Amino acid sequence: MITVYEAGERAKKASKSIMLRTNDEKNSALLLIAKALREHADMIIEENKKDIAVAREKGMKESLVDRLMLDGKRVEALAASVEEITLLPDPVGEVVEEWKRPNGLKIKKVKVPMGVIGIIYEARPNVTVDAAVLCLKSGSSVLLRGGSDAINSNKCLVEVIKKALSETLISPDAVMLCEDTSRESATKMMKMNQYLDVLIPRGGAGLIRSVVENATVPVIETGTGNCHIYVDESADLDMAKEILINAKTQRTGVCNAAETLLVHASVAESFLPVAGKALSEKNCRILGCEKTRAIITAEEATEADFATEFLDLIISVKVVESIDEAISHIEKYSTHHSEAIITEDKEAAEKFFREVNSAAVYHNASTRFTDGGEFGFGAEMGISTQKLHARGPMGLREITSYKYIIEGVGQIR
Amino acid sequence: MITVYEAGERAKKASKSIMLRTNDEKNSALLLIAKALREHADMIIEENKKDIAVAREKGMKESLVDRLMLDGKRVEALAASVEEITLLPDPVGEVVEEWKRPNGLKIKKVKVPMGVIGIIYEARPNVTVDAAVLCLKSGSSVLLRGGSDAINSNKCLVEVIKKALSETLISPDAVMLCEDTSRESATKMMKMNQYLDVLIPRGGAGLIRSVVENATVPVIETGTGNCHIYVDESADLDMAKEILINAKTQRTGVCNAAETLLVHASVAESFLPVAGKALSEKNCRILGCEKTRAIITAEEATEADFATEFLDLIISVKVVESIDEAISHIEKYSTHHSEAIITEDKEAAEKFFREVNSAAVYHNASTRFTDGGEFGFGAEMGISTQKLHARGPMGLREITSYKYIIEGVGQIR
Repeated sequence: MITVYEAGERAKKASKSIMLRTNDEKNSALLLIAKALREHADMIIEENKKDIAVAREKGMKESLVDRLMLDGKRVEALAASVEEITLLPDPVGEVVEEWKRPNGLKIKKVKVPMGVIGIIYEARPNVTVDAAVLCLKSGSSVLLRGGSDAINSNKCLVEVIKKALSETLISPDAVMLCEDTSRESATKMMKMNQYLDVLIPRGGAGLIRSVVENATVPVIETGTGNCHIYVDESADLDMAKEILINAKTQRTGVCNAAETLLVHASVAESFLPVAGKALSEKNCRILGCEKTRAIITAEEATEADFATEFLDLIISVKVVESIDEAISHIEKYSTHHSEAIITEDKEAAEKFFREVNSAAVYHNASTRFTDGGEFGFGAEMGISTQKLHARGPMGLREITSYKYIIEGVGQIR
Repeated sequence: MITVYEAGERAKKASKSIMLRTNDEKNSALLLIAKALREHADMIIEENKKDIAVAREKGMKESLVDRLMLDGKRVEALAASVEEITLLPDPVGEVVEEWKRPNGLKIKKVKVPMGVIGIIYEARPNVTVDAAVLCLKSGSSVLLRGGSDAINSNKCLVEVIKKALSETLISPDAVMLCEDTSRESATKMMKMNQYLDVLIPRGGAGLIRSVVENATVPVIETGTGNCHIYVDESADLDMAKEILINAKTQRTGVCNAAETLLVHASVAESFLPVAGKALSEKNCRILGCEKTRAIITAEEATEADFATEFLDLIISVKVVESIDEAISHIEKYSTHHSEAIITEDKEAAEKFFREVNSAAVYHNASTRFTDGGEFGFGAEMGISTQKLHARGPMGLREITSYKYIIEGVGQIR
């Protein structure tokens, strides 16, 4: 088993072989990867079965076993998603800006690959393929460090990808897997500044915190979403109900699901009974502030509840006296992922847009749209909740860097 | 003396008071700051004299004492540079992109302030004013942590700035100074993720390394520049000499000065004697590879020399057999700041642009142009040598973030 350092070094060495490829060359490689995934579906599923067996032996919950599982349909879906990436425009080489200085220097700001992208993630083996292919299309090599639960699947998937790459101008080392799934290998990877240009953690809050606290490699923090729906005094209450139910219950385990409902006091008495009934019909537990509980039946919401990303059929509810109180509540408790105001008052919406300091701020729409696909990016590497580099959904353009190209005729200072 | 935590907390609380200001409001505040600097010039100079006295007592080199020193002329220059910042366009609110989704959602990507910017820097007190004013103009509060050598000057400058802000809608806490100049205060600040959105170190390589190694707050790495001039086989050798002398000797202590000369073997015999003579006339020491020393008089260049940012009248020289060898040498030794190719061959220039992976890549111009002012940004917060967020000179736009604003009419998923 090679060390994480060796894996990083090889990814770095291979980065030039992918950095210089044209869009056509990269797409051809991706199509070969899709083909190889289909051709080796049986082998992939066999290896995946080993992971599943170990997981069941360890007593893993069946919902998690399901996330780990690859069958014929899922491998086909993986291959198809690789093919879809070929349809996306290549961000590399895009001239973002271009200008001429009074001294005649022509300056171009051009998108370039990041170099080597490190991904630390947990059990789902489909991330192995998704992340590898997005990195390749963006012109970067990738060092993947998945969890031990999926190690057999991951090894097999990366082997299949490397085999496809060996038929192209891209070095198979452009996709490296850290086969050592010990905690130490992750910790080492977080400090491999000599090989990695950026580190993206994908997984639960614990993993992300550990990466942020320990990494010296620049990190893009992803994921945790304590998202809010604020129903303003002038809201269309039918629309508010639809959006609330969608944002809270359509899928609960995702970062763009709503966790807290804020209701303006002047509509609390008319809205809360309707909202409460609709939430209860979806089996959603309601944790309410004192004023909420004076209007509908709810458990008591604590300070800690308002700070919690439930990722479950639970919602905290608070009645606020003004839009300012709603904004202050969001400022205090939000992870600054996605928030929505439901209002017919244009000025209130403008104020919410201006003052709410989150990656995605909505007026009259569900927070569930914060997603690379829904934004039209075609694919997604995660959703950034930090302000540096990328914020919100990260597509291909967000995992590139830029450089300046300057043309002169002998200019000196 | 307040703790660094208290200073951070106050800067964070004040960030809303600056985030929401219009360009006119920010410019008025800046003009008041410029006025206050002029009015309190005597007090500033008095306080600065205390720092100078301590520095001389400690035996500080006179060249460093000079960097620390403020006199009437320098305070006036500071005030004038604050006024210049008011002339720059406000990046906040700029709609970077705007599109509509098939479901009718209107998505806007809008530039927003970073929030709270932390700056850790060394002796020069002018950074205190420059950095504070750039942050304010970009809509962010700032937590300044300068070195102990300038502490009296820094306290006085920040007091003057705060006094000016107290007459505006911007909270004086939008500019906070960490008065504790112990190593511990800097280390604590590097981990203040709850208050700081980004940390920018400005200073020597040691400071920057320490911040990169210890910070959990996202960092923009700045500064170190091991820059290269490559003279290609088809170079205009007169132009090459002018650019080399400018890049190496016009100012030696700056990050965009050249440190290594690479010369194609086919022009080494004609170029090196001319270049060597011109460098010697500027009292520049020459450290050469074996092939260089076969042509001109030079000391022996070691591996370590090629990796050194001399910041002095010293240059390392290497003869290369091809443009590929030049690019490989740069890939191995460069800090990826700025590199230049001197050539009349358009294809060689294109290859250099494509394959050299540095923040600024030049064709037939001096590396000394990698500078916010020279790029036309009007002001500069430093020069990033990392690939995340900002690369190369950072002006006002580079110290902002963005958010997505999404307008709906009730859309759900």
